[in-house]
Amino acid sequence: MQPTQSTTATASELAKKYREVRACTERLCDPLETEDYVPQPVEDVSPVRWNIAHTTWFFEEMVLSNFLEGYKVFDPAYRFLFNSYYNSIGERTVRNKRGDLSRPTVGEIFEYRAHVDSAMNEVFGRGLTRDAEYLVELGINHEQQHQELLLTDLKYTFSMNPLAPVYKNDVILVEEEAPQERGFAEIEGGIREIGYEGDGFCFDNELTRHKVFLGDFSIARGLVTNADFIEFIEDGGYGDFRLWHSEGWDWVRGNDVTAPLYWNNRSGEWNQFTLGGIRAVRPKDPVCHISFYEASAFAVWKAKRLPTEFEWEAACEDFGWGRRWEWTNSAYLPYPGFKVADGAVGEYNGKFMVNQIVLRGASAATSKGHSRTSYRNFFHPHLRWQFTGIRLAD
Amino acid sequence: MQPTQSTTATASELAKKYREVRACTERLCDPLETEDYVPQPVEDVSPVRWNIAHTTWFFEEMVLSNFLEGYKVFDPAYRFLFNSYYNSIGERTVRNKRGDLSRPTVGEIFEYRAHVDSAMNEVFGRGLTRDAEYLVELGINHEQQHQELLLTDLKYTFSMNPLAPVYKNDVILVEEEAPQERGFAEIEGGIREIGYEGDGFCFDNELTRHKVFLGDFSIARGLVTNADFIEFIEDGGYGDFRLWHSEGWDWVRGNDVTAPLYWNNRSGEWNQFTLGGIRAVRPKDPVCHISFYEASAFAVWKAKRLPTEFEWEAACEDFGWGRRWEWTNSAYLPYPGFKVADGAVGEYNGKFMVNQIVLRGASAATSKGHSRTSYRNFFHPHLRWQFTGIRLAD
Amino acid sequence: MQPTQSTTATASELAKKYREVRACTERLCDPLETEDYVPQPVEDVSPVRWNIAHTTWFFEEMVLSNFLEGYKVFDPAYRFLFNSYYNSIGERTVRNKRGDLSRPTVGEIFEYRAHVDSAMNEVFGRGLTRDAEYLVELGINHEQQHQELLLTDLKYTFSMNPLAPVYKNDVILVEEEAPQERGFAEIEGGIREIGYEGDGFCFDNELTRHKVFLGDFSIARGLVTNADFIEFIEDGGYGDFRLWHSEGWDWVRGNDVTAPLYWNNRSGEWNQFTLGGIRAVRPKDPVCHISFYEASAFAVWKAKRLPTEFEWEAACEDFGWGRRWEWTNSAYLPYPGFKVADGAVGEYNGKFMVNQIVLRGASAATSKGHSRTSYRNFFHPHLRWQFTGIRLAD
Amino acid sequence: MQPTQSTTATASELAKKYREVRACTERLCDPLETEDYVPQPVEDVSPVRWNIAHTTWFFEEMVLSNFLEGYKVFDPAYRFLFNSYYNSIGERTVRNKRGDLSRPTVGEIFEYRAHVDSAMNEVFGRGLTRDAEYLVELGINHEQQHQELLLTDLKYTFSMNPLAPVYKNDVILVEEEAPQERGFAEIEGGIREIGYEGDGFCFDNELTRHKVFLGDFSIARGLVTNADFIEFIEDGGYGDFRLWHSEGWDWVRGNDVTAPLYWNNRSGEWNQFTLGGIRAVRPKDPVCHISFYEASAFAVWKAKRLPTEFEWEAACEDFGWGRRWEWTNSAYLPYPGFKVADGAVGEYNGKFMVNQIVLRGASAATSKGHSRTSYRNFFHPHLRWQFTGIRLAD
Repeated sequence: MQPTQSTTATASELAKKYREVRACTERLCDPLETEDYVPQPVEDVSPVRWNIAHTTWFFEEMVLSNFLEGYKVFDPAYRFLFNSYYNSIGERTVRNKRGDLSRPTVGEIFEYRAHVDSAMNEVFGRGLTRDAEYLVELGINHEQQHQELLLTDLKYTFSMNPLAPVYKNDVILVEEEAPQERGFAEIEGGIREIGYEGDGFCFDNELTRHKVFLGDFSIARGLVTNADFIEFIEDGGYGDFRLWHSEGWDWVRGNDVTAPLYWNNRSGEWNQFTLGGIRAVRPKDPVCHISFYEASAFAVWKAKRLPTEFEWEAACEDFGWGRRWEWTNSAYLPYPGFKVADGAVGEYNGKFMVNQIVLRGASAATSKGHSRTSYRNFFHPHLRWQFTGIRLAD
Repeated sequence: MQPTQSTTATASELAKKYREVRACTERLCDPLETEDYVPQPVEDVSPVRWNIAHTTWFFEEMVLSNFLEGYKVFDPAYRFLFNSYYNSIGERTVRNKRGDLSRPTVGEIFEYRAHVDSAMNEVFGRGLTRDAEYLVELGINHEQQHQELLLTDLKYTFSMNPLAPVYKNDVILVEEEAPQERGFAEIEGGIREIGYEGDGFCFDNELTRHKVFLGDFSIARGLVTNADFIEFIEDGGYGDFRLWHSEGWDWVRGNDVTAPLYWNNRSGEWNQFTLGGIRAVRPKDPVCHISFYEASAFAVWKAKRLPTEFEWEAACEDFGWGRRWEWTNSAYLPYPGFKVADGAVGEYNGKFMVNQIVLRGASAATSKGHSRTSYRNFFHPHLRWQFTGIRLAD
Repeated sequence: MQPTQSTTATASELAKKYREVRACTERLCDPLETEDYVPQPVEDVSPVRWNIAHTTWFFEEMVLSNFLEGYKVFDPAYRFLFNSYYNSIGERTVRNKRGDLSRPTVGEIFEYRAHVDSAMNEVFGRGLTRDAEYLVELGINHEQQHQELLLTDLKYTFSMNPLAPVYKNDVILVEEEAPQERGFAEIEGGIREIGYEGDGFCFDNELTRHKVFLGDFSIARGLVTNADFIEFIEDGGYGDFRLWHSEGWDWVRGNDVTAPLYWNNRSGEWNQFTLGGIRAVRPKDPVCHISFYEASAFAVWKAKRLPTEFEWEAACEDFGWGRRWEWTNSAYLPYPGFKVADGAVGEYNGKFMVNQIVLRGASAATSKGHSRTSYRNFFHPHLRWQFTGIRLAD
Repeated sequence: MQPTQSTTATASELAKKYREVRACTERLCDPLETEDYVPQPVEDVSPVRWNIAHTTWFFEEMVLSNFLEGYKVFDPAYRFLFNSYYNSIGERTVRNKRGDLSRPTVGEIFEYRAHVDSAMNEVFGRGLTRDAEYLVELGINHEQQHQELLLTDLKYTFSMNPLAPVYKNDVILVEEEAPQERGFAEIEGGIREIGYEGDGFCFDNELTRHKVFLGDFSIARGLVTNADFIEFIEDGGYGDFRLWHSEGWDWVRGNDVTAPLYWNNRSGEWNQFTLGGIRAVRPKDPVCHISFYEASAFAVWKAKRLPTEFEWEAACEDFGWGRRWEWTNSAYLPYPGFKVADGAVGEYNGKFMVNQIVLRGASAATSKGHSRTSYRNFFHPHLRWQFTGIRLAD
C-alpha cells in the first residue's frame, strides 16, 4: 500500500465501482442455502459467511472508523469476529475455528453489509481524501480477492460432501476454454523493467518497478492441458521420485496423491468435481487444481522448467493469458525498495514473503478487471484448491 | 439388545410413546436458527443436524427396512450419511467430518423425519412382531439419548462463540436444584443383585442380573456442590499432583485446566456459560461438567473415594438421585453372561467396553423416564461436556 | 506399600537377596555393546542405560538418603536424571527424551551402581528398621521388574534395526515351551477371597485381601498357541470388525496390524524376531506379543471370552501358569480398602489405576520368584512389547 | 555436479587432500565417548555415528562401486543403513530413526572407514578418470560439510543434556572473534556476474555463472553483534508482531522463543551453551544460532533489511567474511541453466530448491578451504542449530 500515491478515480467513479463489486459478491451468494455459509472443512478454506462478513469488516475498520465522523460500528464484537490476520487491530478468531460459529446468522451478516454500504454511501457523498480513496480502492480489490476465494472455498467444501452438491448448473469457470496454442515463443534477453507502471491501483507487492537482467529464454504460448497431464500420470509421473522436489515427494507419498485435486477415475474415465457437478475431464482444457510440486514435476518430466515471474512478466504480451493462475518458479519476495506501510494495512502483503510461491495471471474465478500483468498472487507450494495451472519455459 | 425378550407395550402404546419422543426432539429445536444445526467444534460433539437425522436413520434402518414391506428409503445416500458407528451397515461419514457438510439442508432433514414418521405410523397400524417391538423401543430410547446429546452438544458449540448465544432464557437444566443433603448413609455389605430386573425395556449392558459381594461402605446422601468444589480449587487442588491419576495430571497440565468446563473467573467471581447465557455459579448447586479425573482428585482431596457402580446401585434407594450423571470408580465392562446380539444392533454397546468409565444416575438433560437404577452410562475419563457430577463414598 | 507390615527376612537374608538381584541385572548386560545401552525408539521403551541407573537411583533415593546417616549422593544431578515418575522427588527427565542423553556414560553408571551397592552393604551391616526393610524389599522387587523391562525394551530396540542383532544365541525365553494342555476346567462359583495372603512381600495393589462373588465358569487349562492364532489370522480375524472393540478396530486399521508384534510372513512361512535372532514361529508355543485388543478379538472369534482377574486368581491352582503374561478382561482398579502410602512410594501403583488392563501370571522374562498368584501387572490395551498371551474362559 | 568439467588436481594431490580430510574427521571424534556417537534428539540433528558412516558410504557408493574393479563392499546392509536421501540407490533408514540403531558399533564403523580408505588408496594408485576425479572431489567436499554438521549436531545433542557435557575445553569456534567493523559500504548498481568462475571444484548449485542487474545498495561491513541483539531483546523485539513474518510470529509464539538458541538468562546475565561448556555471552562477538525469522525481524527493527544473495556476492570483497553463516533474503532457487545430473549425484542439491533460504559465507565450524564467495548454503527458515548470523543491508 502506498498512502502517498494518489488515484485518479473520482469519488463518484469509486462509488460506482464499490456498488458493482459489492453487488457482485451478493450475486455469487444467490444459489446458496443458509447451511452452505457455515462449514470450514480445513484451515485454509473459510466459510462463505466469513468471506462476506470479513470484506465488510475491512471497509468498516479501515475506512468508516477512520474517515466517517460519528460512525457507529454495527456490532463491537464483529471487530474481533471478522478480523483475518491484522494483529494491529487486536485479537481475532482463531483461523481454523471460523466454521465452529453459527452466529451471527447469515441474515445478520447481510444486515451488516447493508449498514456498512449505507455508511459508505455517506462517505462517497461527502468526498474522500487521497488516503481514504486509496483505502476504498484497496477494500474493493480486497473484496474481489474474496470473491475468488468464496468460489474456491465453496468448491472445496461441496467436494467433501458425498451428495456432490451443485452450485449452478450453468457455471462455466474452467470447463469451456478455447484450445490452447501449442509451441514456444523465443524471448531475447537483456535488461527488463518489472513491476507496476501507471497511475491506477496496484498492490504494494507490485512495487517498486525495477530493472532485472534476463538471459534468452523460450516460453510456451499455451498452457499445459488435461490431455498433457494425463500422459504424465499414465507415464508413472506420480511414482518417479526423480521428477520431484524432496518435499514434493514426501507430499505425494504422505497424501497418496495420484491426480489433480477433484479428479476421480472410474473405470478408466477421468471425472472431476466442479461447481456445476461431477463432469468428465475435457482433454483440451488447461489442467488445474495442481500444486507447485506437481507443476514442477510435470516440467521436469517434459525436460522443461517453470518460468520465473520476471520471465513471465517480460513475455506475457507474447502469449494469451487469463484463465489460470500459473505457478512460476519464483519465491514470493519483496521487490527492491518495497516498504511496509504503517498501521494495519501494512500487514496486507509483506509479512507473507517467506515459503510461498508466486503465481501469475488470473483464473476463471478472478473478478473481471482485477488482475493485470504485474499482479502477483502467492500460495504455499502444496496447496491446490485454487484454479492453478502450468505454463512451461526453457 | 435381547430380541427374544418381549415388551409389554402394545402397538398403540408404543405408537403414542414414539410420537411423544419424536415431538420432544422437535420441540428442543424450536429456539434454533438454521445455522445452529451445522457446526461440529470437536469430534465428540455432533452437529444438531446430525443428531436429528441419525435418530431418524435408526428407525429407517433398523425397523422400516426390515419390517415394513415395500418401504422406500427417503434417500439412499442417507444410509451412508447418517450412520454413526454401525460397521455392519456399511461405510459412513468420518466422525469428525460431520460438521463439514452443509447438505442435506435442515429443511430436507425435517422432511426425512416426516417421511419416516409416516411410515412408522403404517407399521404401528399393521401391528408389530416381538422383534420389531423391541427395535422400536430401542429406537425410542436411542432418540432420548440423542435428545440429551443435542442439548450438551449445542451447549458446547455455543460456548465456543464469543457472542455467547442464548438457547432459551428460561432454561433451567442445572441451575435450580434443591439444596443437597449432607452426610453419609452407612450400607451393610453382603451379596447383592445387580442389573435390570423386570419386564420393561432395558439396554443389553444392564444384563444379566447377577450377584456381587460388597463389603460394608458408606455413601454420601447428596452430591458435591459448587461451593465444595470452589474450596478444592482455592486449596490448590488443580496444582497438587498427589491428588491425581498420572494421566489426569498430564491432562490438567496439557490443557491448563483450572476449573470445571464453562467456568470463568472474572474479578474473583465465578461465572459459567449455560444454555440460558452466562450466569453466576450458584454455591448450593451440584458441581457439574467435570471429568472423571477431577471427580477422582476431589475425592482424594476429601480423603474419600468414588463409589463403585455396584455400591451405587445397591445404595441408590438410600439417597435421592436424578439430576447429575455421577462418575463411579468402575470401568465399563460386560456383566457376567453379557452377549453381543447378532447384526447391527449388536454394535450398540459391547464394542465400547474398554477405556471408559461408568456413570450412574441421570442428568437434568435426560429425558423424563429414560433412566433407571440399573442404567449405565459411560464416557472416556477426560470428557466434560455432559452434566457430570460427584457423589463420595468411603 | 505397607510401611506398617513387617517382613520376616532378616538383614542378612535381605542382603543376600539384594546382591543376587543386583548381580542378575549385571549378568543380563553381559552380551551388550556400549552402544546398545543408549537408544530409546519409542516413549514406552526405555534405554538399557536408564533401566540400570534408575533401579540404582531407587535405592539411593528411597533407602540411602533416608536411612544411612552421612550418605553422600554419587552425583546430585542423577536425582533429576534417573527419576522415573515420582513427582514428590522433583523435576525429572522428560520420559520420551531418555534416549537423547549420552552422558553419564555406561562406565559411570556402573560406578554409580558400585557406589550404591557399597553403601547398601553398610546399611545391611548396621541393621534395618522395619520401614527400611520394606523399602529394600520394594527396591529389590522394583529392580526385578526392570530386569524384565530391560529384556523387553532391548528386544524392541533390536527389532528396529535392519541388522537384526542377536542378544544371545542360546536365549530361550518363549521358544521352548512344553505343549499346552487343551480343554477347560469347570470352576464352581461362590464367594472367594482375592488378594495377597501371607507375611512375605507384596505390592500395595494386591491388598487388601477381600471377598468377591463369582458365578460358575470354565477356564482353559492351557494357553492359546501360535497355531491357534494362525487359524484366527487365516480366517480373516484382523479384517472382521465384528470381533473387535471399537478402539481396537481403529488401532488395527490405523496401524495396519495383521499379526502379532515381531511376526513376519515370508513366502507363506511365519518368522519372528527374537532375542536369539530371527526364528520360525513354532506352532505349539503359546502366542505372545499381542495387545489386549487382539486377545479379546481372538476370544470373540472363538465364541469365548477372557477371564476376569478374579476368576483367574480363583482358578489358577487348576491350571499351570508361569510363562506368559495373560490379558484378563479386568480393568486395573483399586481393591477395597486400598490406600496410597505417604510420600514418594505412594506413587508406585495407585496413580496408574485408570485406562489400563490387568495381566496375570508371569512371563519367561520375569525374574524367578518375582511373581505369585495375587500378582497384578497392568498395561494399556494397545501395547504389545511385553510377552503377553491369552487364556480363554467361558 | 558436472561430470564433464574437469579438475586440475592430479591423483596424488587428490589423494593427499582425501587423507587430510578423512583424518580431520577422525580428529574431531577424539574427545568423544562411545555413547556420544548414538543419540539423535531431533530429526534434523544426526548422530555422530551416522555422520562418519554416511561420508564413508558416499565414497563406497559413488566411487568404489563404480570405478574400482573387483571392489567388495564392506557390508551390503550398510548400503541401506547409511544412505541419506538418495532414492536412486534404494530404500534407506527413515531419517528420524537414525538414533534408534545401536549397531553397527562405533568400532565397526571405524573398521568400515579403514576398509574404504584402503580401497580408495588403490584407486589413487591406479589413476582416476575425469569422472572419478570429480566424484572424489565431491566426496571430499561432502565430508567437509559433514564435519561441520558433526560439530553442530553434537552441540545440539550435548545441549539437551542437563549435565552440559564439554566437548573440548579449548574449543574456540565462535567465542574469540575480532571486533566487528561498523558502518556500511556503498555499492554501485549495474550488471554483475554471479556464480562460480574458475577451474577448481564447485557444487552444481553455484552454476551457471550468469548476469544479474542490481540497483545501488549499501551493505554492513561487519556482522550484528551479541550486544546489538541484546538491544533488540531488551526493546521487546520478540514481542512485537510488526517486526515478524506471519510464519515467524507463529514460530516465536508456538515455541516461546525469547533469545537465540543456547542462550539462557540467569539473574540478568546472558550465558550460552557452547562446545566448551556454559560460557558468558560476549558482547562483541557476532550473534549466532538464530533463525531466518529472527534475522529478518532484527533487520526490520533496525529499519534495514537482509541483503539478497546476489548483493552479498557482488559486495563480499568490500567486507571481511568467514566466521558466520549469514542469512540472506534470497530463496534457494536454481541459477539459469542449472541442470540436474544423471543418477544419484543428481539428488545432491536440486531437489531441495523449495522453501529454503540461502546462507552465504562460512562459519567457524566450516572446514578450512571449503567455502568460497560463490558458495551457497541453505536451510529452512526456522532452523537455528548452525552458526547462523546477520549482516544488514539497505
